[in-house]
Amino acid sequence: MNMTSPIRTVYVNGQYCPESEATVSIFDRGYLFADAIYEVTCVLGGKLVDFDGHMARLQRSLGELDMGMPLTVEELLAIHRKLVAANNVVEGLIYMQISRGVADRDFNFPPEDTRPVVVMFTQSRPVIESPLAKRGLKVISLPDIRWGRRDIKTVQLLYPSIAKNAAYKAGADDAWLVQDGYVTEASSANAYIVTSDGKIVTRKLSFDILHGITRAAVFTLAAESGYILEERSFTLQEAFDAREAFITSATSFVTSVVEIDGVAIGDGTIGPVSKRLREIYIERATAAAS
Amino acid sequence: MNMTSPIRTVYVNGQYCPESEATVSIFDRGYLFADAIYEVTCVLGGKLVDFDGHMARLQRSLGELDMGMPLTVEELLAIHRKLVAANNVVEGLIYMQISRGVADRDFNFPPEDTRPVVVMFTQSRPVIESPLAKRGLKVISLPDIRWGRRDIKTVQLLYPSIAKNAAYKAGADDAWLVQDGYVTEASSANAYIVTSDGKIVTRKLSFDILHGITRAAVFTLAAESGYILEERSFTLQEAFDAREAFITSATSFVTSVVEIDGVAIGDGTIGPVSKRLREIYIERATAAAS
Repeated sequence: MNMTSPIRTVYVNGQYCPESEATVSIFDRGYLFADAIYEVTCVLGGKLVDFDGHMARLQRSLGELDMGMPLTVEELLAIHRKLVAANNVVEGLIYMQISRGVADRDFNFPPEDTRPVVVMFTQSRPVIESPLAKRGLKVISLPDIRWGRRDIKTVQLLYPSIAKNAAYKAGADDAWLVQDGYVTEASSANAYIVTSDGKIVTRKLSFDILHGITRAAVFTLAAESGYILEERSFTLQEAFDAREAFITSATSFVTSVVEIDGVAIGDGTIGPVSKRLREIYIERATAAAS
Repeated sequence: MNMTSPIRTVYVNGQYCPESEATVSIFDRGYLFADAIYEVTCVLGGKLVDFDGHMARLQRSLGELDMGMPLTVEELLAIHRKLVAANNVVEGLIYMQISRGVADRDFNFPPEDTRPVVVMFTQSRPVIESPLAKRGLKVISLPDIRWGRRDIKTVQLLYPSIAKNAAYKAGADDAWLVQDGYVTEASSANAYIVTSDGKIVTRKLSFDILHGITRAAVFTLAAESGYILEERSFTLQEAFDAREAFITSATSFVTSVVEIDGVAIGDGTIGPVSKRLREIYIERATAAAS
């Protein structure tokens, strides 16, 4: 294992154990069919950011796959809190995965009473003082060839992983995915531009993109701060011509994009809108974390 | 676990163990990112069908994902043979999965020296005297919303699984997937029609479909038997109007499709071309299995 942090306590199906002992059956449908849902909740000051938002999306994702909640929201919250405490997570994240469970390999779903498998682990890392957020991201564009239901947060993440890897190889930090001429989102974050007349533009919610929890929060904060938001698709050319560009996600909050395909966005430095939104988001998220 | 067979011996990373003890780390990239390749080899009379073909495709799939072979072909063959013997598999299959390995969760690929995880298990079942093959398949059509690289045999199988489940719920046996008006393939098999003038039509190899090992074998046998093969896309309407329809895969061989979306294909019974091709294929596969 390539673990850099001290040995973590993780959660697997009712058990807390050291990460080295954390295993699932090879017949877990998450392993054989990518038949699993996940959520990543940010931890700030040892507290959870927008846990309710993540739970709402989790339930939606599970519902779309005809899976039920394996535990109540309260039980899942208790496990989150226990893991944060056990691993002394001050800043970082909690990853939670729920698969349809264990059954001999068959494309057909297993019987309805098959017990889902719940896995959770933490990662400690600086999210507020993130080095990347301080310098702004360089991204490359790549075709979006993911499946047609990106609104469901499944573990079918091979292409986002390939895209991120391709970006690193190209000396960039991330990829923006493009379909039919329009940007869908980043490899694991929603994508935005700020137009020359100061409007914030991001793609409408649909099957094409993840319904970001941070996206929803930033919408509220941006509107409160007087920014005008436009939900529509935008082209790569519009992004090149934009005053600013940025992404949002649970652990990147609002992070400026300063370069796309080698083209400097605006003056190539972190712009005032993304800077301000990041500040407000961190302020509110820190205050509201619980 | 919903295992109907006696306790199997399975293979996990160098170890042979009972299926109940067969586990992988929760940090296996196959589990967290669907970052894994698989192959299914048919077993007939205790012997392997077209093992070389599966190994060639495996190496291609791994190469497309920048993964190397974790073991030599000879070593993989030895494990296949050992599992067949340990589980007394006379007829059935061997499933093999190779993931990029275990690493803390990060979209970026882990270091190149990360050891891939190899998992193998058997399933015993009648494949020659398959009840479904004897009565012919009923299929429904569904939109093909899988990712854009179906030629790489990854475990991103959630949609094929959803499609198969939807077919069962609709009282059918499988789904044929349709994209831009044309049939791509079945949920886990290649799709064919026999036109009114007796030509066998199936989609060309591309990123859109799996490069079936059985497809390649059937091409050779069909040509030898004087059938005319046409590699081109066909519409659902052409399938409704066809004289016959069938699928091919490693464990279904050649299996007739007698109904699509409630429409009887030909006279609604197993047609002579698919019947003949199935016979020839089983004859040759049995003789060549080793």
